[in-house]
Amino acid sequence: MPQNRQVTLIKHVIGNPKIEDFAMIETPIPEPGPGQFLVRNLYFSLEPAIRGWLDGKANYFPPIPLGGVVRGPSVGRVLKSNNPDHQPGDIVFALNHWEDYSILDSDTILLQKLQPKGDTPISYYIGPLGGSGTTAYVGLHEIGHIQPGQTVVISAAAGATGGMAGQIAKLRGCKVIGIVGSDDKAKLITEELGFDHAINYNKTPGIAAAVNALAPEGVDIYYDNVGGPTLNEMLLTMKVQGRIVCCGMIADYNRTDNPNPITNLWEVVARQLTMQGFLLHYYQDKVPAALDQLEKWIAEGKIKVMEHITYGIANTPAAYSELMSGKTIGKALVALDTPEDTAK
Amino acid sequence: MPQNRQVTLIKHVIGNPKIEDFAMIETPIPEPGPGQFLVRNLYFSLEPAIRGWLDGKANYFPPIPLGGVVRGPSVGRVLKSNNPDHQPGDIVFALNHWEDYSILDSDTILLQKLQPKGDTPISYYIGPLGGSGTTAYVGLHEIGHIQPGQTVVISAAAGATGGMAGQIAKLRGCKVIGIVGSDDKAKLITEELGFDHAINYNKTPGIAAAVNALAPEGVDIYYDNVGGPTLNEMLLTMKVQGRIVCCGMIADYNRTDNPNPITNLWEVVARQLTMQGFLLHYYQDKVPAALDQLEKWIAEGKIKVMEHITYGIANTPAAYSELMSGKTIGKALVALDTPEDTAK
Repeated sequence: MPQNRQVTLIKHVIGNPKIEDFAMIETPIPEPGPGQFLVRNLYFSLEPAIRGWLDGKANYFPPIPLGGVVRGPSVGRVLKSNNPDHQPGDIVFALNHWEDYSILDSDTILLQKLQPKGDTPISYYIGPLGGSGTTAYVGLHEIGHIQPGQTVVISAAAGATGGMAGQIAKLRGCKVIGIVGSDDKAKLITEELGFDHAINYNKTPGIAAAVNALAPEGVDIYYDNVGGPTLNEMLLTMKVQGRIVCCGMIADYNRTDNPNPITNLWEVVARQLTMQGFLLHYYQDKVPAALDQLEKWIAEGKIKVMEHITYGIANTPAAYSELMSGKTIGKALVALDTPEDTAK
Repeated sequence: MPQNRQVTLIKHVIGNPKIEDFAMIETPIPEPGPGQFLVRNLYFSLEPAIRGWLDGKANYFPPIPLGGVVRGPSVGRVLKSNNPDHQPGDIVFALNHWEDYSILDSDTILLQKLQPKGDTPISYYIGPLGGSGTTAYVGLHEIGHIQPGQTVVISAAAGATGGMAGQIAKLRGCKVIGIVGSDDKAKLITEELGFDHAINYNKTPGIAAAVNALAPEGVDIYYDNVGGPTLNEMLLTMKVQGRIVCCGMIADYNRTDNPNPITNLWEVVARQLTMQGFLLHYYQDKVPAALDQLEKWIAEGKIKVMEHITYGIANTPAAYSELMSGKTIGKALVALDTPEDTAK
């Protein structure tokens, strides 16, 4: 009889997540109660934000308790339903858990019914057409107020969100500079994704000086995925009344007890900057339009999709550790083997 | 023959400004050229922002060179004019210099023709009806988007801008907490200015804990005049989607080489905060309406005016040093003796 394999947290994570921080357990497949529906997960979306829930401290979501199943976004197929809005066969995105089967209801956070178009792979709905793509789109438009002709800088530019943000900014007619951590990534974003310039922060002692040289006109929008020293330097490059879209601060996720100090915040006053943090679930009403536009661009070949797929639920901790050490390019996801596969 | 007494900068300021950093010189009274007009200054507005121009480094305005006359806002009376918009007798506010007589033209920064109403003292137009009052008003409305029923925290709450911001927030129907540096100031803002609560940061080890105890509902607007450790703590008290009005960062003005590190910036993402810096001269179009409302409130006795007046241009350096060491309450200004007085 098939079981529900689940990845649990067994040690509070310190520094970069390690395989030993997690364990696999098997539990019976749950039955949906009134208003609930059962989903078989197909892909997990590996995201830096999950790191914030692994150290036992309150964050914008409650911490995952020791022994608890790790929370994370996934795409899955509805198997059984007591909810009239969600029928067996439907494909849904939601904030579920790292497990084969999840129970959802209409209030599940980030729940979105997907209507995969044509031959668009379902995995795209977890990356470019999922949280990464819509976060990049909503961040640039709703928070950044992007306009043609602006200068946009993006950190973690070879990451899932950064790579999408850069391509969207190019399609909106902007000059785009990406900040990355290796020459390979620099090459990728300029040669494959169409960024105008790339800066490898590991080879660039002064990021502010490098950005100022490439953009003497000043930066209109800094799309920040990393925080820390990069953000501190970027404060010295902004145009008067520029906007900093605070999407994430991955530089601190592995060192929440000792975050990087920011010392250039005076520039917020002197340059009249706006720094604005946002989380996608507050902008759910903007997602359908974002998705429409992104689907069009992908269908027209105007956006390149970069996926980093790990196969098999058992490899989820290793894949997550790899993501958080900065080794992956593009959207990191886990393609689930089915329990039946494992039983073979 | 009367001369123009001017206060010059003779040493770049390190730490708190000292009397010896300045000198007085006398030069001939200038003649207005085409389009210009001559103003006799009546009051200097002493402001923390001036500190940013005294250390020889570029700021949002160019630094004041050694030997140069100190730049600062003043109110004065037009004496001679080659400018049809400004007639002798007019009272004007503008970014002038610490001197008896200034030459202005239509492009002078912050230039505003004043129409003192009834028996409103002219000095009010440099404080509650000048930069301090309008900065507080514009900051709370345009940047803070203040609404009745919100919880507002104000730092440097017994200062010229902070004291006005608190009274305005009360008049807008908010719960208002002020952060100050002494028990006297705490008493003043609660008993005289109507703040709901005061926190003396010199007697409060954890500002975040103190604010959270007084405002468990979370803070909607933090009107920040100080930056530094207070801002760092306030990041832990904000409501989701709260707004931080970045008006000044006086905590760092005397230590620009070694600014206080901010370590809680992750809260900008986690709480989806907006931090926005602003300078009044970008919002000049909002000043007339602000002034109208403030004049009404003052005439109705709904706003208390606190002035700290030093008499005589020669005492300007001492008065500025006193302001920047946090010893003054309310608007610090210098009332000019006339050169004729001195000649007596």
